[in-house]
Amino acid sequence: MQHKLPAIAINGVIDKQVSPLDRGFTYGDGVFETCRMMNAKIPLWNLHAERLITSCGKLFISITLNLIQDYLAQLIAQISPQDLAEAVVKIIVTRGQGGRGYRLPNDVSPTICIGIFSAASYPESNYSQGVSVRVCSQRLGCNTTLAGLKHLNRLEHILARAEWSDETFSEGLLFDVNNNLIEATLSNIFIIKNENLLTPDLTEAGVAGVMRRLIIDELTPELGLTVSIQKLSHHDLLTADEIFVCNSIFGIWPVVKVFDQKNYFFAPGKNTTNLQKLLAKRLSLQN
Amino acid sequence: MQHKLPAIAINGVIDKQVSPLDRGFTYGDGVFETCRMMNAKIPLWNLHAERLITSCGKLFISITLNLIQDYLAQLIAQISPQDLAEAVVKIIVTRGQGGRGYRLPNDVSPTICIGIFSAASYPESNYSQGVSVRVCSQRLGCNTTLAGLKHLNRLEHILARAEWSDETFSEGLLFDVNNNLIEATLSNIFIIKNENLLTPDLTEAGVAGVMRRLIIDELTPELGLTVSIQKLSHHDLLTADEIFVCNSIFGIWPVVKVFDQKNYFFAPGKNTTNLQKLLAKRLSLQN
Repeated sequence: MQHKLPAIAINGVIDKQVSPLDRGFTYGDGVFETCRMMNAKIPLWNLHAERLITSCGKLFISITLNLIQDYLAQLIAQISPQDLAEAVVKIIVTRGQGGRGYRLPNDVSPTICIGIFSAASYPESNYSQGVSVRVCSQRLGCNTTLAGLKHLNRLEHILARAEWSDETFSEGLLFDVNNNLIEATLSNIFIIKNENLLTPDLTEAGVAGVMRRLIIDELTPELGLTVSIQKLSHHDLLTADEIFVCNSIFGIWPVVKVFDQKNYFFAPGKNTTNLQKLLAKRLSLQN
Repeated sequence: MQHKLPAIAINGVIDKQVSPLDRGFTYGDGVFETCRMMNAKIPLWNLHAERLITSCGKLFISITLNLIQDYLAQLIAQISPQDLAEAVVKIIVTRGQGGRGYRLPNDVSPTICIGIFSAASYPESNYSQGVSVRVCSQRLGCNTTLAGLKHLNRLEHILARAEWSDETFSEGLLFDVNNNLIEATLSNIFIIKNENLLTPDLTEAGVAGVMRRLIIDELTPELGLTVSIQKLSHHDLLTADEIFVCNSIFGIWPVVKVFDQKNYFFAPGKNTTNLQKLLAKRLSLQN
């Protein structure tokens, strides 16, 4: 029997619920991945998988990729191919069930929760004409141990996203407590200045996105561009020639307006357009 | 029928499970309280309740205390009074079920998870002879929005608690990224110097404990002592006359040894002893 979306399975069992003793629930003790699905496949799966395994390792959560892939394949098999033409896959891995207290439980077995959701739909103009974003007043705390990981402790991002409900803003930009630009609430950010790409250093805060990595490692070299990973200030942001945000789900959106007490305007530039084109090619090839 | 411990109810239903879409599970989007239970009552309930409601308010989680108290009373009624002579009550409140994404869901209804667990048992010597603690290398990030709240984003504390398994250490001390002493993994800390009580300022990091508040607001005034809430350094800690840690479950433990690359020794002092005696009196009166 085929399952409609959303379809969520826990440790391979569809429609199962989570124990209230699961440390994901009690402490946000785990990590997640949010992946685009195209024709029942996940583009950039290798990058997602690598981040997931690395992140689990940093939290001392012992997991094998094979098990996750088996659960994913089982879930996919229960869903109609047409529902999987464009979808979103969310994988949560928690430490598993424990008792009270922060101490790592003995003999704990991770919880693997895989959900397949209907595709997010975004206006075509987000790609061609660009998006408006705002600067959030919520700041990100700095912690080198957790920085970069897509872990389940996301209250800062939730409070940032709660700052606006005006649909004209597609994203909110986040600075850390030391006023360094870090990312947007659900995407990473790049700026382009004098034909150089710059993106925030994420060693103290932020989520190191898979699309960010693809852009740095593969797309920019192919375009003959270099990326500098560095601290970026308000001034760097507001004096950029081009700005774009990116993630695995929507790809790349040019930013044409930044609201930071007042409006600052930017044009969608040729470098951003070239990256969008190259990404589209890359995704269609992989698919 | 009477339920054995642990007994856990979700929105009043015992043995119910949590939805994988619960934002407590997906993002650590909620708060909790851990309370001592004595003879089926929670000492200091008013302080727990006030912190819980205030914390929910700061996260825009709308909750009424009456509902929590009703669920708690229902759960207590299903447990044998002898199991409730000494127990631990944990109350988790999450934002409730949502879809993907950080945005606050519309029409969301909070999840109230109440668990009653067997009492934690600690050696009597922890109270009379004091405990050994160690300084954790894990640092706490600073964030004024979240500081003080007992929220569900607890990875920093988990990683700190994972630093040691040697049972001779009863607690780990946490400093923030700016090297200010903040708290211990599951308790707050006070130091005494020249008959003055000092405790870390928690406006940038840490959990503002209920026992800490009782000590500041009620116990120290009764003893004619004053408490200074301020930034505290490694040096302040290591040159203290007395040190103690405190929480709602175990009360007050003198600290007699701090391991910070080498051992530093402290004697259980008369101020700590006087506070322990006054707390015991306060708890027996309330009970």
